This record gives sequence, C-alpha cells and structure tokens, in this order.
Amino acid sequence: MRIATKPSVMNFLNEIATQYPAAISFAAGAPALQFFDRMDHASILSALQCYERHACTRTSSICTTQRLLQYGPTGGLINDLIAQQLQVDEGIAVTADRVLVTSGCQEAISLCLAALCPTPSDVLLVCNPTYIGATGAARNHRIPIEHIPNTGSALAAYIEDAAKRLHHRGYNIRALYLIPTFDNPTGYVLDIQEREEILTLCARLRIVILEDNPYGMFRFDGVPVPSMAELDHAGCVIYLSSFSKTLAPSLRVGAATLPFTLFGSRNAREELMRELLESKSLLTLNTSQLNQGIAGGILLQQNMSLRSWVEPARSLYHHNRNTMLNCLDREFNAMNKQIRWNKPEGGFFISMSLPFDFDSDAVTDCALRHGIIVMPMRFFALDESQNRDIRLSFSSVSPQQIQEGIRSLAKYVESRLASEMPPQ
Amino acid sequence: MRIATKPSVMNFLNEIATQYPAAISFAAGAPALQFFDRMDHASILSALQCYERHACTRTSSICTTQRLLQYGPTGGLINDLIAQQLQVDEGIAVTADRVLVTSGCQEAISLCLAALCPTPSDVLLVCNPTYIGATGAARNHRIPIEHIPNTGSALAAYIEDAAKRLHHRGYNIRALYLIPTFDNPTGYVLDIQEREEILTLCARLRIVILEDNPYGMFRFDGVPVPSMAELDHAGCVIYLSSFSKTLAPSLRVGAATLPFTLFGSRNAREELMRELLESKSLLTLNTSQLNQGIAGGILLQQNMSLRSWVEPARSLYHHNRNTMLNCLDREFNAMNKQIRWNKPEGGFFISMSLPFDFDSDAVTDCALRHGIIVMPMRFFALDESQNRDIRLSFSSVSPQQIQEGIRSLAKYVESRLASEMPPQ
Repeated sequence: MRIATKPSVMNFLNEIATQYPAAISFAAGAPALQFFDRMDHASILSALQCYERHACTRTSSICTTQRLLQYGPTGGLINDLIAQQLQVDEGIAVTADRVLVTSGCQEAISLCLAALCPTPSDVLLVCNPTYIGATGAARNHRIPIEHIPNTGSALAAYIEDAAKRLHHRGYNIRALYLIPTFDNPTGYVLDIQEREEILTLCARLRIVILEDNPYGMFRFDGVPVPSMAELDHAGCVIYLSSFSKTLAPSLRVGAATLPFTLFGSRNAREELMRELLESKSLLTLNTSQLNQGIAGGILLQQNMSLRSWVEPARSLYHHNRNTMLNCLDREFNAMNKQIRWNKPEGGFFISMSLPFDFDSDAVTDCALRHGIIVMPMRFFALDESQNRDIRLSFSSVSPQQIQEGIRSLAKYVESRLASEMPPQ
Repeated sequence: MRIATKPSVMNFLNEIATQYPAAISFAAGAPALQFFDRMDHASILSALQCYERHACTRTSSICTTQRLLQYGPTGGLINDLIAQQLQVDEGIAVTADRVLVTSGCQEAISLCLAALCPTPSDVLLVCNPTYIGATGAARNHRIPIEHIPNTGSALAAYIEDAAKRLHHRGYNIRALYLIPTFDNPTGYVLDIQEREEILTLCARLRIVILEDNPYGMFRFDGVPVPSMAELDHAGCVIYLSSFSKTLAPSLRVGAATLPFTLFGSRNAREELMRELLESKSLLTLNTSQLNQGIAGGILLQQNMSLRSWVEPARSLYHHNRNTMLNCLDREFNAMNKQIRWNKPEGGFFISMSLPFDFDSDAVTDCALRHGIIVMPMRFFALDESQNRDIRLSFSSVSPQQIQEGIRSLAKYVESRLASEMPPQ
C-alpha cells in the first residue's frame, strides 16, 4: 500500500504531442472529433430550447434562459433526466434524489473518495494498472491506495486477500474503484459471475464500489453484461456517469448515483448525499446550468436513451478497432511470440505486451524516429509489473492513421528487438 | 484558531426560500436576473462565433466548434483574454502563463488553499465575518483557520498579532483571504493606505494574499481604489477573478492569476502553477471550453473591458442601494439608536446591527410572519461577535420589493423591541 507519487504523465504526453505535432497519436483516450459534427451551433441551441420548454412545463421556477444563467441547486438541475436515462439505457432503477450532477465525472470521483475515506486508515482499492484520475484524486486527498492485479478475472479473491492483509495492519478498505466494462487502460470486461462475486464480497466487507462506466455504450460484439449497479441489491455500488464520450467532454457534465440504501441503510445513503452536496458546494458551487440544459435537451430529444445518438460513434470505433486488430495481426504476427495484445469487445483501448521495457525514453524515441505516440502502461501502474506493456487507443485516429501508425510501431519494435534481444 | 464546523447555511436558506416562496429575499447574493437579458440565445451564439473566429486566426489548432467540444488544456483556453481584461479593467499587468482558468472562482479558492497550506501547521487567516466559501473550502482541506476582526481598517496590526500568536504555538499563516473591495458580507472597502500596509506586512511575513474581487466592478460613488494585485510589487497577491457577477454564474468560469514572482522567486511561482495544474487535472480535468468560448467571445466583443458591459447592472444595483438606504432611513430612523447600518460605495450588501440576537429562529419568524428573508451575519462568523448583525442584499430584488421588504423588516424589529427590550 502506498500514497501514490505525483504523476506528471499528462504534462509529459502533452509536451510530446506539442513537440511532434505530425506524429500519429494512439495515446489520447479522447472521443473522435468528427463525432461532434452533430453538435453544431444550431443543434446546441435546439437542445437548449428543448430543455427550456421542458423545464417551463414541468415547473414555473425555471423556464427561461435567464434562470438557466443564474446560480442553481448544488446537486443539479437535470437529475430526473439522468435518472431516466440510467433506467432506459442501463436498466438501473433510480430516483432523481439519488443523483448528484457533477462538473464532469472526475469531480464525482474526487468527491466520493473524500467522503468515503475520511480518516487516514481508510483505504482505496484499485486494480493495477488503472485510470490515473482515480489514483490521482486519492493522492490529492492523501488517501492510501492498495492495489490488486488487473487480470480481468478472479478479482474477488484478490480483494478478500487485500482486505485481510490491511485489516491486520489497522487499515480498512472503504472503496473499490472499478471500470468493469471496457476498462481503461486494459480494455477488459468483467463477466457477470465475476461481478456477482465482487458484489457479494463487497457487501460483506462493506466496501463501496465506485463503478465508472465511460465506455459502456461502445460495445462492438459479444453479449452485453449488466452493470454492477443493476446487479447490486445490497447497496454497495455508486454508479459514475460520464457524458464526455457519449455527448462531449466540453459540457463537463457527469454524475454520481447512490444506491437506494447504503449497505441496507437509507439514512446512511441520505447522509452520504448530504456530505457530497456540502463538499461540492465548496468545490464548484454547482454544475453549469447552461451545460446541464444542453445535455438535458439532448436527453429529451433522444427520448432518454443515448443508444441511437452514439451509434455513429460506436460504429466508427468498431471499424477502428477492427482496423487496428487487423494491422496488429499483419504487422506483428511473424514477430517474437512474447508480443501479445487483447481483443476488446468494445471501448477505446487495446493493451499490448512487449518483450522489453517501454518507458518515457521509448515514447520520445517512437515520436521522434517513427512518428508515432503510444502510452506506456507504466503510467497507469502502481508497481513495476506493467513496464513492458503499452496502451493503444483507437478512438481519435482515422483508419489510415491506424494502418500507418501500427506499421511504424512494428518498425520501432523490430529495431528494439534487433538491438536488445539475443538471437533465438 | 479552529477547524470550522460544518455550515449547512445554504441548505437552511434554500429550505426557507422553498417553504416561503412569496417572501421577499434580501438573503441571496445573486446577480439580478434581468441583467441576463443581454445573454439570450442569439447573443450566446454570437459570442461563441466571435471566439471561434478569433481562435481560428490566432492558431490553427482550435478553430471549430468541434475542437471547442473536445477535452482541452487543464490550465484553460482564454488565459490571454483574461490577462488582457485584467490589464484593461484592473490595471494589473499580467501575462497569460500566470492565469489559471477555473470552473468558477470557488474552484480557484479551493485549489489555492490546498496548494498554499499543505501541512497541518499551515494556517488560513480570514476576516470575521467572511465569505463562507473560503472558510468552507479550508475546512474541506482540513486547513486550520485563524480570524481577525473584519473592521475594514487597522487590519495590518491584527494580522501581525495573529502571526506572532500562532508562531509561538508552532503554526504559520500561509494565506490571507480578503475581499478588499465591497466585502462579502460587510460591504467594506479597504483604503489604499490600508492595502499598502497589509501588502508590506504580508511580504515580510511571507503570507500569500488571496484577493477575491467579485464585486469590484460595481462601484456607485466614491473614488476607486487600486486592487491589491496592482499595488503588489513583492509577489504576494494571487488575484481571483469571478465572472459570475459580470457575465453569468452559469458559465462557471473563474480564474486565479499568480504574481510575476512568488516573494521574489519566479521559480516558486512556476512551481506553484504546476501544483495548481496538477490538482485541477484531478478535480475537474479542465474548465468547459464551450463556456470559456462564450466568455472569451464577450471579452473580444467588448474590446477586453467589461466596464460598459456591466454598466446596466451597475446602474441597477446603484439605484437599488439608494432605495434600500432611503428605506432604512425612513423606517428605522426613529427607532432604537443601537440599530445601525453602513453605506457601502458599491457591491451587493449592506450590513446592519440590531440590538438583539438574530438567529435561525428569527429567520423563520421573519419569513413566516413578515414575508421577508434576511441573512444572519452569524452564518458568516467564526465566533459569537456577529450574533446581532444581519446582511441585506439588494442585488436581486426590485425597488418595490426593497420598499416593501424594509417596511416588513422594520415591523419585525419593532415587535422584537417591544417584546424584548426594557422600556427606556
């Protein structure tokens, strides 16, 4: 267990991208720009007008642009619409009073961690590797972090071990941060049995699961798995919504949805919501009502489901994933057998294992000599176990860039193998 | 010194306002709704288009709505425009690299406090009473708070005393939160000599001044006083910008502007900026680029000065203050001489002293029986010294409401005097 050291990962990658603007980047996990074509000025306005008409008929208190421009309730304005979308798209039955609208999902993570881990013996458990926004937020709050291997399976046993180990040392795991569907950075999906096991265990150990699900809408093949919030009957899942990949990152609208009870206690859930509201009021006051209006308007226009709204993007990412997998097969098949990659059924990322260390120098070398930027998995890691892995994002590149980029990556890998690996 | 206890002030006031929707409220410090008439859909769009044209000619990297909808740099997009506005409107010479754009000014306060007070012996100094968003943010970060009387003068002596007192106990004041122009909640303005004294002292004691200035643009009479950032030559002022009162709260765009050097060290300032960026990236990732685009567009359309933009609002608030002062004179002049109020030269607030305690019960009583909601000053206080004071906000009420409301307040005060005060 450790208090994570400061990552300056994002700065490093930004600098690389700025220094080598012509390089093809598989590093950024951003949505495709062309997916925003539907959110031109007219559409933004139309969404806003749609929300204003809705708010006007629903209650007389918020019915004009003027009122949308004013301060608003700390907890949010479109909680009922987000609740309905969760019901329709995710099968999660939820009432508006359990939804906290946040200034992006990152704020939800930060607020929840602070509320769940108030004392120095309260620990956050994460998979290793994991999204650095979660470990970074924990570090910001000086919350100790424990990690288990991000294997995509058998997690319950690891969690139980970690809990026992820590308990002996006077620590308690209070929260488990998980991206169970199309994980960042690995692309893994937890199957339903895995989810049930984790839920049963966490209910017993009173560990709150923070289920982050930014990529769940982007499944390309395979059978959909219910969200952990849908499977949760013990009151241990806080579901984190992000609209950055489904609508647009610039709206900075996200949400945390609390379970009906917290481990069986409705009072405890209400008390947690009060704490979250209090903290949010001191962090960002409230989430932009203008942006909530735009997001709410799109939800209304789409009859509370974003499934068909994201379809063009899903289809584009699907095609990109296929292209990347085909290119990897073509370019790497004849190479060293220690080179492996997974075949994710959705999401933005493929993870790849190399037979040599891949560090910051390798990033620079790739960018400078091969015109390609990839993400070392060690940037997401809490130990040395990921030093040979990389994350390849296929969300914000064109098929042509993927072909060119994977070819360049193969050349880089070949040159590394030639210079470092003993002949076999 | 103390770690402030949790205020549920805002919740209490929201509940009161909800329970008594017909009551006239002098409690909210929100801008007037009619001031937003200029920000109708067409104007919002026109501002956005203006920013997009500007960004397009300035750099090729951000020139379409699509790019505005994407993730953006942690530190902000319109830093150069905010820097220019600070130069034009406030006389503060500043370069874009010293500006951090935040999700509202509240985030800037929270980020700065955390960065300036990292260890348990680092103390925030505030005036008493003061804005609860500052003390609340400190509490959220478990930063100890020391307070000095909010007298509007002779602050330097109080600061020096507090620093000595704390130093003996092993504590160090790292930050001083101040609203030197039209203070919230008192309405006070620090004169130039007062500002110079505080600056000299804080430079010597290495206390960073967080200069919060949400109301500075709204001066009705008297002579303008330079901001503390303008007077700062030692590198001890972080200037906090809010656009909530000048543009609209719903944009959630604010900024923290660092001094050229931090107490003489440019490296220290750059290091502080890096820390703030790192923390912001883990709190809200970045500030909505859409909203930055709207704010930036208005700045461009207004030639980087918001003076004429806010003129209708300034004029409205001026008229409201005059109305409130006239009403107070008329209604309270013949009453108990212990009833006093100040005559602020600008801002949103008048502070008033009563000859009896004014608590939550009094708020409810006022709302229920007299149809008027006022803010007990004790809500902003860190001790019992403010128990008899109230804050009257004149920003979001009409002159007619002011007349009616002050008349009702006088009736309430009369009834309290009759029931509680001994006959004189």
